[in-house]
Amino acid sequence: MARKSSKSNVLSYAPKKAAHPAEKTAAPSDSGVPRQDDARVMALDLPPGTLSPAMQAYFQKCQEKLGFVPNVLLAYAFDNAKLEAFAAFYNDLMLGASGLSKLEREMIAVVVSSQNRCYYCLTAHGAAVRVYSGDPALGEMMVMNYRAAKLTRKQRAMLDFVVKMTIESYAIEDEDREALRRVGWTDRDIWDIAAVAGFFNMSNRVASATDMRPNAVYHGQSR
Amino acid sequence: MARKSSKSNVLSYAPKKAAHPAEKTAAPSDSGVPRQDDARVMALDLPPGTLSPAMQAYFQKCQEKLGFVPNVLLAYAFDNAKLEAFAAFYNDLMLGASGLSKLEREMIAVVVSSQNRCYYCLTAHGAAVRVYSGDPALGEMMVMNYRAAKLTRKQRAMLDFVVKMTIESYAIEDEDREALRRVGWTDRDIWDIAAVAGFFNMSNRVASATDMRPNAVYHGQSR
Amino acid sequence: MARKSSKSNVLSYAPKKAAHPAEKTAAPSDSGVPRQDDARVMALDLPPGTLSPAMQAYFQKCQEKLGFVPNVLLAYAFDNAKLEAFAAFYNDLMLGASGLSKLEREMIAVVVSSQNRCYYCLTAHGAAVRVYSGDPALGEMMVMNYRAAKLTRKQRAMLDFVVKMTIESYAIEDEDREALRRVGWTDRDIWDIAAVAGFFNMSNRVASATDMRPNAVYHGQSR
Amino acid sequence: MARKSSKSNVLSYAPKKAAHPAEKTAAPSDSGVPRQDDARVMALDLPPGTLSPAMQAYFQKCQEKLGFVPNVLLAYAFDNAKLEAFAAFYNDLMLGASGLSKLEREMIAVVVSSQNRCYYCLTAHGAAVRVYSGDPALGEMMVMNYRAAKLTRKQRAMLDFVVKMTIESYAIEDEDREALRRVGWTDRDIWDIAAVAGFFNMSNRVASATDMRPNAVYHGQSR
Amino acid sequence: MARKSSKSNVLSYAPKKAAHPAEKTAAPSDSGVPRQDDARVMALDLPPGTLSPAMQAYFQKCQEKLGFVPNVLLAYAFDNAKLEAFAAFYNDLMLGASGLSKLEREMIAVVVSSQNRCYYCLTAHGAAVRVYSGDPALGEMMVMNYRAAKLTRKQRAMLDFVVKMTIESYAIEDEDREALRRVGWTDRDIWDIAAVAGFFNMSNRVASATDMRPNAVYHGQSR
Amino acid sequence: MARKSSKSNVLSYAPKKAAHPAEKTAAPSDSGVPRQDDARVMALDLPPGTLSPAMQAYFQKCQEKLGFVPNVLLAYAFDNAKLEAFAAFYNDLMLGASGLSKLEREMIAVVVSSQNRCYYCLTAHGAAVRVYSGDPALGEMMVMNYRAAKLTRKQRAMLDFVVKMTIESYAIEDEDREALRRVGWTDRDIWDIAAVAGFFNMSNRVASATDMRPNAVYHGQSR
Repeated sequence: MARKSSKSNVLSYAPKKAAHPAEKTAAPSDSGVPRQDDARVMALDLPPGTLSPAMQAYFQKCQEKLGFVPNVLLAYAFDNAKLEAFAAFYNDLMLGASGLSKLEREMIAVVVSSQNRCYYCLTAHGAAVRVYSGDPALGEMMVMNYRAAKLTRKQRAMLDFVVKMTIESYAIEDEDREALRRVGWTDRDIWDIAAVAGFFNMSNRVASATDMRPNAVYHGQSR
Repeated sequence: MARKSSKSNVLSYAPKKAAHPAEKTAAPSDSGVPRQDDARVMALDLPPGTLSPAMQAYFQKCQEKLGFVPNVLLAYAFDNAKLEAFAAFYNDLMLGASGLSKLEREMIAVVVSSQNRCYYCLTAHGAAVRVYSGDPALGEMMVMNYRAAKLTRKQRAMLDFVVKMTIESYAIEDEDREALRRVGWTDRDIWDIAAVAGFFNMSNRVASATDMRPNAVYHGQSR
Repeated sequence: MARKSSKSNVLSYAPKKAAHPAEKTAAPSDSGVPRQDDARVMALDLPPGTLSPAMQAYFQKCQEKLGFVPNVLLAYAFDNAKLEAFAAFYNDLMLGASGLSKLEREMIAVVVSSQNRCYYCLTAHGAAVRVYSGDPALGEMMVMNYRAAKLTRKQRAMLDFVVKMTIESYAIEDEDREALRRVGWTDRDIWDIAAVAGFFNMSNRVASATDMRPNAVYHGQSR
Repeated sequence: MARKSSKSNVLSYAPKKAAHPAEKTAAPSDSGVPRQDDARVMALDLPPGTLSPAMQAYFQKCQEKLGFVPNVLLAYAFDNAKLEAFAAFYNDLMLGASGLSKLEREMIAVVVSSQNRCYYCLTAHGAAVRVYSGDPALGEMMVMNYRAAKLTRKQRAMLDFVVKMTIESYAIEDEDREALRRVGWTDRDIWDIAAVAGFFNMSNRVASATDMRPNAVYHGQSR
Repeated sequence: MARKSSKSNVLSYAPKKAAHPAEKTAAPSDSGVPRQDDARVMALDLPPGTLSPAMQAYFQKCQEKLGFVPNVLLAYAFDNAKLEAFAAFYNDLMLGASGLSKLEREMIAVVVSSQNRCYYCLTAHGAAVRVYSGDPALGEMMVMNYRAAKLTRKQRAMLDFVVKMTIESYAIEDEDREALRRVGWTDRDIWDIAAVAGFFNMSNRVASATDMRPNAVYHGQSR
Repeated sequence: MARKSSKSNVLSYAPKKAAHPAEKTAAPSDSGVPRQDDARVMALDLPPGTLSPAMQAYFQKCQEKLGFVPNVLLAYAFDNAKLEAFAAFYNDLMLGASGLSKLEREMIAVVVSSQNRCYYCLTAHGAAVRVYSGDPALGEMMVMNYRAAKLTRKQRAMLDFVVKMTIESYAIEDEDREALRRVGWTDRDIWDIAAVAGFFNMSNRVASATDMRPNAVYHGQSR
């Protein structure tokens, strides 16, 4: 019974039918500019998959703790195996044990997403930086230009490294890793920095390729 | 007497002494990241000039209507002639009669500033887009990636044009102007589009070159 | 009476009707390449505005001192308020008191315009560098590649800074300003360097967006 | 017992101690150029983790079927949880059910890696393209310039899309997805194209950030 | 008589009729991807020229020593004067006396061609690096990312210089030449480095502009 | 006897000793900017070679017809074989029979050199465009931004092609060659367009790598 209700619940998470391309050019509102009210999860029209009990519980937990299920999870929900692989990978990376704080991992997420101009990730992870730091200006700086922020030497080196990874990874050499070690990052930390920066270089591109849309609730968080 | 009080008032607007470069690397707060509390207007140390009565009145009016004097004006306040030239140029451009609404002019400001990753202008004019449109998501989209927004065909063509002006102005040719005319912009409108986009390509660079800092109040406006 | 004559004078300055886009592809001359004879001021068709006495006098003065009115002024002449704001801004910047010589300000103008490949500004300000310096090769170097020029250490740092402002202003940080201070520029000089470089990043783009055409007379000056 | 032997086996997979940066500049061999003999897995020095039975079996299976364990797996072997998450994600993506053939997925891997100039992935996946297609020239073209290859219209559109995702994902819009649909890709296929291209934009960067080294055996496969 | 036979010989070298553009999109083979079997020399359809006895002998010598005539020579064979000028220029450069070994010159060829993504030159000169060095991995590294290779300090400086020449030659200044001198290159060596790098910046572009195709035999050499 | 006199003549052509790097930062003249008086041919210090009678005659002919020997020839004069190969290659290309006029070939030279910002070639070949066309503005447009010029459809397509060859040769495909054929260029013409564009991509880079300096006389030609 519980299963049935959570299943119908899951259906409501399923990606809404993709907007017809032509909808993108919309009629103006009072201000002369159409209202930005995202009513869909992404631009691909994929029928919802059947979620495993574990994934149903995960969505339930999102709903309880966050008040919503992040749209990126709804996007992956067309295929339970892909959703599980993504969630496992993500949770280990962003929430697992690490020499980087959760805030630092979110700062990497936003700075990488800023290079790639990913609307989904900038919105969702920009909010996370504001929430974790309690400092709205910090979130804006990560989105707009991380060079404007006052940071510790270690954090600045970390962000410079992930920007280089993002725009010219082929040019990274021993001296770049040495620069991280010199300010105090261990080899294990360097792995985590690289792994988080790599992950958002993936997620940014999947989100842009599918026109994934962030939950509207992020915009107002911790302003 | 009024003059004297407003003059001492002006002194308080004057650029704070520039932070010593080394301050940029700061001690962490509780979150492990230093608090982003800008206490200065820009990184150049210029003694305050003597403002003309007109400029004193202008600052007074800012204080009354906005509750603060925008830091860009304080930055120019080291030289009254430069301040007056800048204010006259700016006010004609952004507030004068035009086929573009004020919101559209602010959208251009933000989209150009996003290309140039200008922290000052993204903060100040991103707020203006939110205020004029009453749509926080629209402001975020202009900052992050204007291609994510639903716009009228005319507005989209306008923003595509200003991005081309910003990143490869040398490649603009008759067909680009024709594309604007085709969706309904007049030659006079095209001038205004070009003038606003040109202006922020100037302001973004002056702000970045001097590390100009936006008033903190912008961050929370119309969220 | 004087007014009437100067007014009819003004009409002759007014932007010529824009060439039809198709005209750009023209019939070859004897050399097999069409003759480059610009007969218009810009590609936008804007009816001439009514100039104020001050602006009429300004145009008169241009005619007397230069033998011609620069086309950029004719382009702005469709709207007296815009013309006045532009002229005031420009004259303070390029002719007002500064720690930079007029030649140095023109060098910045040309080097920025070279990055942006602006035909109008390279022609007009390239001529100015030749005229002020009396050194035709210097003008060519500023147009073609400023790195080819022998310069004082101070001038080279100045030009490196404006190139960085032009191509990646978001990356300017305290060390860039320190590099200017180290070779002898004051904070006030840095403002002026930034202001001139910013201005031509605006003017280049407005000129390219409107296909503004330089007065032919510039080509032969001080060769 | 089996467990013990496979465990000591695992130790031999563990990342070799990272070369000291200075080693990179080496003494020349007879040809005047140092011999390229990679004796380590990556440039980070991470102690080997304890592998789960599942991962031990996986390594065993690699050894039996391929004759070696791919170095990327050895690199992740410092942490069993990360290795498992990576392997699950990878295997679903590259070997799971899809409208793309395994060869097509490998072609995407190589074309993305060519844009990012990733030595590890170009070597390992370039070999995979040669093996799956039996056409050595095809592998070389994917590495060098995919535009040189004769492809079906569908495959060419797929590769153009992943290149755009790699170099300017922020510019992908509805018309790009429509171009894929027009040549016959379904929305589910588009997801898979995006997911594979996204994945290698992650892996390329992690490999470059850690200087991961491909198993030498790849070089000679299917030449 | 000799002439007649050699002429018919020449016909077999002549560029094959260019493929019709539409052929590029081909039918799939068993693997689902069309077989990459180049049956033409380039995409321009130029009737074969009459070769001079010297050039006939040169082609004969190629056939005897290499087993084939390199397609680049066949491409130039439409005009004997151009072929002779090209061959003389090439042979002096790549085979003449120099402070650079032939292997080093081929390494420059491949690294430049990698920047320009030239399929012809990467294939032909990638093979040459493998042949001269006897080290297949070295050839792959030059093709994929030369930064991955262990090199002497002198060789690395040489390759860094040619990459800078290829992507931003306008920025080369005295300090770049000094960097070469510091590691032991003479001024004459610097000329040769520049000349070889310059040459492949020409050849890469001519090959890409004409879609020149490498002889298939290169792919398998020295693997 | 003739030989002796011409030989001593040749010595005077030989590259002047390269300026010490530090000389580049020079003392200001009256204008505040050092005078740009090039007294050397290039920045490499190569002892003059012994010219063959043919090359001596060639230099003599330059002196008689042009009034000077172009510095590029003096730069190559350290090695007679290289000089001969270069001169033969150049003369066939720029002066030999072709479907392109000499002016068109010079236009390609300048447009390519503008992309590469090569001071030597822009100066020497910019002068050639002015001389051949008798139109100073045409020369300036080729140097500054060829898109500003009125050209025949054929010439514009030719210049667009050489710019693409210069900045992204790897992206040239059949449709680019078709675009040239459509406006009337033959396959043989396309070869010549590619060959000239390729050549200046070589020469620009050799000139920049060696800091080659144009003869001062070019600056004033046909203004």
